[in-house]
Amino acid sequence: MAFAHFHGLGSLQVTSRECVFNTRNDTSNNRRYAIKACIKKPDENIHLESKINKVLDSVKWDEKGLAVAIAQNVDSGAILMQGFANRDALATTIASKKATFYSRSRSTLWTKGETSLNFINVHDIFLDCDRDSIIYLGKPDGPTCHTGAETCYYTSVFDSLNEPQVETSKLALTTLYSLESTLSKRKEELSTPQQGKPSWTKRLLLDDKLLCSKIREEADELCRTLEENEDESRTLSEMADVLYHEMVLLIRRGLKFEDVLDVLRCRFTQSGIEEKNSRKAKTVT
Amino acid sequence: MAFAHFHGLGSLQVTSRECVFNTRNDTSNNRRYAIKACIKKPDENIHLESKINKVLDSVKWDEKGLAVAIAQNVDSGAILMQGFANRDALATTIASKKATFYSRSRSTLWTKGETSLNFINVHDIFLDCDRDSIIYLGKPDGPTCHTGAETCYYTSVFDSLNEPQVETSKLALTTLYSLESTLSKRKEELSTPQQGKPSWTKRLLLDDKLLCSKIREEADELCRTLEENEDESRTLSEMADVLYHEMVLLIRRGLKFEDVLDVLRCRFTQSGIEEKNSRKAKTVT
Repeated sequence: MAFAHFHGLGSLQVTSRECVFNTRNDTSNNRRYAIKACIKKPDENIHLESKINKVLDSVKWDEKGLAVAIAQNVDSGAILMQGFANRDALATTIASKKATFYSRSRSTLWTKGETSLNFINVHDIFLDCDRDSIIYLGKPDGPTCHTGAETCYYTSVFDSLNEPQVETSKLALTTLYSLESTLSKRKEELSTPQQGKPSWTKRLLLDDKLLCSKIREEADELCRTLEENEDESRTLSEMADVLYHEMVLLIRRGLKFEDVLDVLRCRFTQSGIEEKNSRKAKTVT
Repeated sequence: MAFAHFHGLGSLQVTSRECVFNTRNDTSNNRRYAIKACIKKPDENIHLESKINKVLDSVKWDEKGLAVAIAQNVDSGAILMQGFANRDALATTIASKKATFYSRSRSTLWTKGETSLNFINVHDIFLDCDRDSIIYLGKPDGPTCHTGAETCYYTSVFDSLNEPQVETSKLALTTLYSLESTLSKRKEELSTPQQGKPSWTKRLLLDDKLLCSKIREEADELCRTLEENEDESRTLSEMADVLYHEMVLLIRRGLKFEDVLDVLRCRFTQSGIEEKNSRKAKTVT
């Protein structure tokens, strides 16, 4: 099918399957052991350890030996939390692929999820141009915030200024997820007696025939912008239309856009042939 | 059309059109003036200033009076840069809606873009659960990094470990933008003599008829998962299919997914009726 020849975006797997790493009771020594244990052959071991040390040396740790570490959801792009990392925390994250920080209040390493089991599974790590700021790009096992919120950023300053009496709670959502959140609210409103204001989204949510006819129509209009060589702005507008309607369908089915991205990412990280074989039988049309 | 009844997601506009704010030559005093100048009526002025001070008081500034401030692209979700904010920097950002930081090396405020003119236009500001970390959620006028890169995070640790000899430069991209980046590479390969490996994406990029037929087919398959009440995983898979093909069409036309999100965001922040009126004439079907 479509992805049969799609080239992978897979990144280095520093840890191997043999890598057993206990994040709960580690000391500096067994963390070092863990890095070593992640490689099968002794030669590769020394080589990789040297490379990791080179990376760790390249970070501009501050006077306390720390750098800012930001955990970001690899699919949605949501900033999950921000902490600090020292050399050991970064080394541990590289080895274990679980986002690990240095707690300034407790003066100890901590791996996010060691208590809640909501680990952040790190897919890649990025350093900024000054090499004093780190992104842990990963997939969370569950809500990141200790409050149970999906991310730690749920207090909007502008909302606070608008309605200081009301304790607001609104996640820092980027455009696509703001839209998704609004669509979800419209769906929720359908189950309340007054149902709020009338809206196009609600009409679509209540009428599968209308929704599907709109998706087919908007997909067709998107295609026609290419076929008829229309202005680029028309393509953007039609793509926005079709995306909106497709997202309504996801909401209608109780699905999250993030889960679609999860499917796409899984396809990237395996070869087209593997991906094709792993798919369930599907009518090829 | 579709968005006629779509309810807005607009957030508070702290600044009014009368707010003239010079980010280049400000002192603490004229920053205070700027906050005041942002409000039309004296009563509102005092009221808003008091609210802003309450927010500023609520932040847990560290022993140096700083908090981590992360600038994030409101559309793509990309983390653009990370700096630090003090009380004045946050107040300035609230008033000017331009991401402003405190430079620890120069001991002064600086507004991103004051030299390059690549400002980050802040749409909302979020505090984390501990109130010691800030997100400036905004739209950049151009590349954020002083190197000319879109963001400051272009050094992958895992790539460095993989190929230490090669100076890699790969932006910290989330799933959708990794896909977009791969599709762009396939398009670039088409102009090289050998054209790299064959791929489905390349076939689509070279054959508009095939591409459009696939988009229509996949949109239809997505609809059928709802109409025929198929398993939820089928909906996710078909949505991934149609999204991939639609993104190939965007790449084919030289367009960015971020620009589609820009269109969607602009629709959110105005009422359905305004949005409808602002659209160019379009065949209503």
